[in-house]
Amino acid sequence: MNLHPDYLLNEVNEPSDIKQMSLDQLKQLAAEMRQLVLERDAKIGGHVGPNLGVMELTLAFHYVFDSPHDKIIWDVSHQCYAHKMLTGRKLGFLDPDHYEDVTGFTSPEESAHDFFEVGHTSTSIALAVGMAQARDLMKPQSTNNIMAVIGDGSLSGGLAFEGLNNAAKLHSNLIILVNDNQMSIDENQGGLYKGLKELRDTNGKSANNIFKFMGLDYKYVADGNDLQTMIDTFNEVKGIDHPIVIHVNTLKGKGYQPAVDEKMKYHWRKPFDLKTGKDKVAASGDTYNDAILAELDRQIADGVPVAAIGAAIPGEFGLSEFKAKHPDRYFDVGIAEQDSITTAVAMAQAGARPVVFEKSTFLQRAYDQLIHDMALNDAPVVMIVGGGSIAENSATHQGTFDISMISDLPNIEYLAPTNEEEMISMLRWAIKQTDQPVAIRRPEKPLVHGKATQDDYSAIKYDIAHHGSEVAIMAVGDFWQLGEEVRGELAKKLNIDATLINPKSVTGIDPEVLHHLAENHDVVVTLEDGNLSGGFGETISRYYGPKNMKVLNFGAPREFADNVPTDVMYEWYHLTPKQIVDDVEKVIHSL
Amino acid sequence: MNLHPDYLLNEVNEPSDIKQMSLDQLKQLAAEMRQLVLERDAKIGGHVGPNLGVMELTLAFHYVFDSPHDKIIWDVSHQCYAHKMLTGRKLGFLDPDHYEDVTGFTSPEESAHDFFEVGHTSTSIALAVGMAQARDLMKPQSTNNIMAVIGDGSLSGGLAFEGLNNAAKLHSNLIILVNDNQMSIDENQGGLYKGLKELRDTNGKSANNIFKFMGLDYKYVADGNDLQTMIDTFNEVKGIDHPIVIHVNTLKGKGYQPAVDEKMKYHWRKPFDLKTGKDKVAASGDTYNDAILAELDRQIADGVPVAAIGAAIPGEFGLSEFKAKHPDRYFDVGIAEQDSITTAVAMAQAGARPVVFEKSTFLQRAYDQLIHDMALNDAPVVMIVGGGSIAENSATHQGTFDISMISDLPNIEYLAPTNEEEMISMLRWAIKQTDQPVAIRRPEKPLVHGKATQDDYSAIKYDIAHHGSEVAIMAVGDFWQLGEEVRGELAKKLNIDATLINPKSVTGIDPEVLHHLAENHDVVVTLEDGNLSGGFGETISRYYGPKNMKVLNFGAPREFADNVPTDVMYEWYHLTPKQIVDDVEKVIHSL
Repeated sequence: MNLHPDYLLNEVNEPSDIKQMSLDQLKQLAAEMRQLVLERDAKIGGHVGPNLGVMELTLAFHYVFDSPHDKIIWDVSHQCYAHKMLTGRKLGFLDPDHYEDVTGFTSPEESAHDFFEVGHTSTSIALAVGMAQARDLMKPQSTNNIMAVIGDGSLSGGLAFEGLNNAAKLHSNLIILVNDNQMSIDENQGGLYKGLKELRDTNGKSANNIFKFMGLDYKYVADGNDLQTMIDTFNEVKGIDHPIVIHVNTLKGKGYQPAVDEKMKYHWRKPFDLKTGKDKVAASGDTYNDAILAELDRQIADGVPVAAIGAAIPGEFGLSEFKAKHPDRYFDVGIAEQDSITTAVAMAQAGARPVVFEKSTFLQRAYDQLIHDMALNDAPVVMIVGGGSIAENSATHQGTFDISMISDLPNIEYLAPTNEEEMISMLRWAIKQTDQPVAIRRPEKPLVHGKATQDDYSAIKYDIAHHGSEVAIMAVGDFWQLGEEVRGELAKKLNIDATLINPKSVTGIDPEVLHHLAENHDVVVTLEDGNLSGGFGETISRYYGPKNMKVLNFGAPREFADNVPTDVMYEWYHLTPKQIVDDVEKVIHSL
Repeated sequence: MNLHPDYLLNEVNEPSDIKQMSLDQLKQLAAEMRQLVLERDAKIGGHVGPNLGVMELTLAFHYVFDSPHDKIIWDVSHQCYAHKMLTGRKLGFLDPDHYEDVTGFTSPEESAHDFFEVGHTSTSIALAVGMAQARDLMKPQSTNNIMAVIGDGSLSGGLAFEGLNNAAKLHSNLIILVNDNQMSIDENQGGLYKGLKELRDTNGKSANNIFKFMGLDYKYVADGNDLQTMIDTFNEVKGIDHPIVIHVNTLKGKGYQPAVDEKMKYHWRKPFDLKTGKDKVAASGDTYNDAILAELDRQIADGVPVAAIGAAIPGEFGLSEFKAKHPDRYFDVGIAEQDSITTAVAMAQAGARPVVFEKSTFLQRAYDQLIHDMALNDAPVVMIVGGGSIAENSATHQGTFDISMISDLPNIEYLAPTNEEEMISMLRWAIKQTDQPVAIRRPEKPLVHGKATQDDYSAIKYDIAHHGSEVAIMAVGDFWQLGEEVRGELAKKLNIDATLINPKSVTGIDPEVLHHLAENHDVVVTLEDGNLSGGFGETISRYYGPKNMKVLNFGAPREFADNVPTDVMYEWYHLTPKQIVDDVEKVIHSL
C-alpha cells in the first residue's frame, strides 16, 4: 500500500513532470524523497547517507536536462534512489509491497534512464567517455549531454584517474560531476583529499587544481544541496562543447542528523529502527571476524610484525576495532584494491606480516596484482577473503568468483576452513610461514566450532572425518555442514555409509587420499560454495578424468543471480541434500 | 668472451666501487653502458630507449645512496640494465655468452639489489610505500632511503595514482622519482601529460602541480641526463624525512640518435642490426593482425560504427596502420587497461562496435572490468586477445592465464579460431551480433589457412573434422596442428583412427557432440595452449565426470616459467605428440 498517497511525488511519472514545478515544489519533492529513502532503508536496508546527500543535484539534473536523451551515469550507483523515484519507479519507494521490485543500483532492465548495471566504484568517468566517443562517432552533430557523477570516495580508485586522463582528450560534451561529500565509506584516505579540501577552502580558486592540471575545464559549487544553485549550474553547462568538471560540495546524510553525525555507520545499513537508530536484527554471538582479530591481537602481543590492510570497508571485517587498538598497524588504502595487494606484497617482502582483508567481489579488482605482484614474487602475504559464497546479493557484488580467480594461479595457497578453530589454526600457520602467499576463505555461515586436524598446511592433508565406502563427499569450507547433511541423506535414502572429507584447501590436492579413495569408492561428490567453472570440483574431475571414478561437482553455474534468495539459488543449482542425493543415485544406477 | 676487457666497467663489482670515481670516470661508465645496452639488445633483443635514458640517474643513485640498504624500485623494471651492470651482473652485458644469464627485468633471484620481479607497469609507488611501511613498523628508528622510479607512460595506470594517494599519508622517508621522458610506449596519452608539460615548461614552478595537490613535496630537475645535477639532487634528498617527488626530465634513447628519433620503434626491439637499424629476422608473409585489420577496414567501408581501442601497445597488433587510416576511430587509452574495457563497454552499449586489442598478460589488469562492467552488462564488446600461449617469455608477461580468466565468467563467449578464415568468420559474427561480449583468441603460431565451418557462433557447434573411433582429440585454437599430429601418431603407433574435433570455443560446450562421442569412444583428449587450472579441458572433465568416458587434459600446469624455451616447456608439460600418445596408451591399457 502506498504509504504517502498525499505526496507530490505521486504526480511524477517521468522526469518531464517536474519541469513545470516551482522551486518550492521541487524542494517539497526533495523532502519527500528523503523521507522515502529513510523509510525504505529502515525496512529493507540500503544506502542511506549517499542518497540523502544528492537529492538536490538529482532534481536539478532532471529539471534542467532531458533524460534519457541527456544521460546521467552514477558511479557505484548507490546514490540513485532519487533518480529512480523521478524516472517511473516511485512505487518502489512509496509502497513497501513494491520495495523489492526496484534494486538499489541502476539497472537498464528497470528503466531507459539507466544505462549500466553498476555496483563497484570508479567506473563512471570511463563509461561516460565511452558514451561520448560513441556519440561522436555515430552522430557527429549530436548535442546530447553526458554526465558522470562520481564521489563518495570513488575518486581514489585508479580507474577513476584513468578515466579523467582520457576524458581530457575529448573535444566534445562531457560533464563530470565530482560529488565531494568529504567522505569515503570510512573517512577519506590519502593525499587526493587534501587537494580537494584546498579547493573547497578556496571556493574552487586555488591555483593548484588536479582537474585543470589534466587539462579539464573546472567549476566549483560551494553548496550542492542548494537546489537553485544546482539548477543554475546545470543551465550554465548544458550543451557545453568540451569536458568540464563540476566540483560540488555536498553533505553526506543531509536532512537526517544521525546520518550526518555518523557518516560511516549510515553509509549502508541493514534494516534499522528509524527512531532508535538500532539494527532491527541485532548481531549476536561470536563471529569469525572476532576470532580473526583476537588472533591478530595475540600475534602482536607476541611481537610479530603484523599489520592489517583494508580497502575502505572496515565494517565488513570489524577492523575499526583493530584500528582503535593498533593505529600504527592499520592501513586503509581507501577504495584502491590494487594498491592494497601491491603494498602488502612489499610489506611482506620487507619482513612484515601483512594481513589483507578483502571481499571476494572487490578482490576481483586486484587480479593482476594477485598474479604479477603476489604470486610471481611468492610474497608471503596473508589474505582474509570475505563474502565468498552463493548467497542473496546484488549481481554487481556476486561473491562466487574468488575460488576460480585465486585457485587457478600459481604459488598462492587458498585455504577454506570449516570451523573457527580450523580457521585460526590456518591463520597462525599463514602468518608464521614466509614461503608463499596464503589466502583464507572466511566462512560465511553462522560460526561453528570444531577442531583443526593439522597445524602446518605447507602440505595439504585431506581430513577423512568419516571413513565409509561407495560414495566420498568432499565438502569445502562452509559447505561442510551440507556435506554432513548429504551423508545423512545418503544413509537414509540409499543405505550408503558415505565417506566425508574436509579438503581444507581449494588449491592443493592430496594425491594420497585421492588415490586410495579409488579402492572402495565409485563416486566422489564435491561441494563448494562458489563458481563451478575453474573451481575446486573441476580440479578433482581433472584428477579422476583418466581413472575409474565417477565425479559429481556441485556449486554455482557460470551466471549472475541478482537479488535471488539463497534458498532459491540452492534449489536452482541442486544444492539441497535431497537433490544432491538424487543426482548421486542416478550415477550409481548407471554404474 | 668479454667483448670489452678494456672497459672501466670491468672494475665495478658492486655499487660501492663507483663511489670513489671521478665525474669523468662516471661519465665514461655511462658511455660504456650505453654501448653495452645497444650491443646486447641488437644481439638478443630488449628494451632500448628506456635504458639509454636513465644511465645518469642510475649512476647517481648508486654513487649517492647505499644499495641495498637504500632501496631503488624500478617501475616495469625494463630500464634496469645499468642498475644490473653496476650491481654485479656486468658480464651479462659485456659477454654475449652470458647475455642469457641475466634477465631484462629486476629479479631478486639474481641479486640482493633487486627486490621484486616486475614487468607490468605502475606498481612501483605502491611497492615503495609498502617497503616504507614495513621499515617504519619494524625499525621505527631506521633511516634507509626507499626510492621508486616511475615514468615512461606508467603514471597513467590507475595503480600509480592509488600509490601516490597513499604515499601522501606517510610521515617518513620516501622518494618518488618521476622519470618524465615525455613518452609512453607510443606517444603519451591523456590529460596528465599536459600537466607534466606545463611543469617542464615552467621549470617546475607552475602553481598547478598534481604532486603538491596531493600533499607531496616536490622538486624539479630540468636535465636528468646531467650526471652532476643528478648527484647533487640525490645528495639533497638523501635521508629526507617525508615523501617527496623528484620530477626529472630525461631523454628517451639518449646517446643513440635512431632511438631518439624513433622513440616508439626503439622502446623494445627484437634483434636488430646496429648499423642499418633493421630487424635481423625480417617479418615475412601475412599475419593474423593483417587479416583482422583488413576485416575492420571492410566493416568501416560498409558503414559499421567500428572503433579500435588499445592500451599503449599498438605495435603488438599493427594498430599504427589503423590509426593512420582511421584516426577518429582509434582510441589509445595509454597504459590503462581497466579504462580500455570500461570505455569499450560504454561504447558498445551506446551502439558503436568497439574492438579492444589486449595482450593476455595485460588483460589481467582489467579482470573486474571484464566481470562487473562487460559481463554483468552483457555489453557486446569485441576483444582480440593476443599473446595467449605457452611460449618462451619472461614470467612477468606469461600469457597462459587468459582462458581460465575469461572462460570462468558469465556471458562472455571466448572463441579460439584454428586458422585465418575461421578467425575472420568469428570476427564478422562478433561485430554483427549485439547480444553479448565476444573475445577472440588470436592464434600465436604462424598463419595457416583453412575454412570456417559455421558463420553464426551464437550456438557453438563443434566441428568434427575427422570421424574416427576409440579416441577423440579436441584441439583448441592454435593447438589444432598439434591435434592433427597426435592423430597421426595414434594411427602410427596404436593403429587407432582417432576422431579430431575443433571445439571453436573455450566457453561454450556442444552437448550434442559430447553426448554422441560416448557411443564409440573411450577416451577424450583435450589440447589447449594455456593454463589447465580453470581451462577448457577441465570443463570437459567435469562434463564427463559422472559418465563412462576417460578424459585427459593437456596444457600448462599452475606455475610460472621464466624465459624457458617453448620446446623445453612442451617436453615438461607432455605436449609433444609422442608424449601425448604415450599417456593415452596408458589409459587405454587400463580400460
